[in-house]
Amino acid sequence: MESPCSIARTLEVVGERWTFLILREALSGVTRFATLRKNLGVAPDILSDRLATLTEYGVLMREPYREPGSRTRCEYHLTPAGRELAVVLGALQQWGDEHLPWPAGPSVLRCTPEGDALHVGFLNQRGREVDLEAVRFVRTAAYPS
Amino acid sequence: MESPCSIARTLEVVGERWTFLILREALSGVTRFATLRKNLGVAPDILSDRLATLTEYGVLMREPYREPGSRTRCEYHLTPAGRELAVVLGALQQWGDEHLPWPAGPSVLRCTPEGDALHVGFLNQRGREVDLEAVRFVRTAAYPS
Repeated sequence: MESPCSIARTLEVVGERWTFLILREALSGVTRFATLRKNLGVAPDILSDRLATLTEYGVLMREPYREPGSRTRCEYHLTPAGRELAVVLGALQQWGDEHLPWPAGPSVLRCTPEGDALHVGFLNQRGREVDLEAVRFVRTAAYPS
Repeated sequence: MESPCSIARTLEVVGERWTFLILREALSGVTRFATLRKNLGVAPDILSDRLATLTEYGVLMREPYREPGSRTRCEYHLTPAGRELAVVLGALQQWGDEHLPWPAGPSVLRCTPEGDALHVGFLNQRGREVDLEAVRFVRTAAYPS
């Protein structure tokens, strides 16, 4: 974690393609290694490695479970910090929906429990949307010179 | 672009660590190959490859420029679609600010031209913020079975 840039630090934890897709599954409620492996078609060693990184940085937490007749295994549950990555995943999904549309339409919708469609955007401190044109990224004294 | 998942499709365009950092520079106004290379410390062949992908998918567009005494070169400018990736970058930055804080504090702030701090979140169609707890990702008929 050597970068003063928050984007670069976040990418050290989640910045690989498989990791984003693991998080997508986790946000859909998938918790088990075998289900992740099947849904994603990912090699088990890569999956183990990515799950270890996500656990190390507090995005996922391990919880033991045991099926009748089997040994104890671990499930992977999102921590509160992990659930906040829904904003990143929602933003990636929204961009794909708009700029790389799929012929059959979106495969996943973002909505409230009442079915109101949601989007991801910038908000001020009063919780009101701010247009992208008005968003500035301003360097502080902590920015490397 | 073989996936019905918008997240997976977006990651085919932007889902590599260098690509996110190139976009970070582009959103800060950097347009030239030499400046990107210097700021990021990235190998020129990787930088060329990532810029080609971003141009191919309409995130960046090439524009010729010519310095006195030099040959014509290309600058890379964000398209309107590229500028919309600010939402993804802002979400990555926000998560890092909160969960992987840097000792000296954030190196970049998100704000309006008047200096109002901004965050990234989910909004309903009336432009009001919706708590993360109320956000659902709901599969549609286009979701692969």
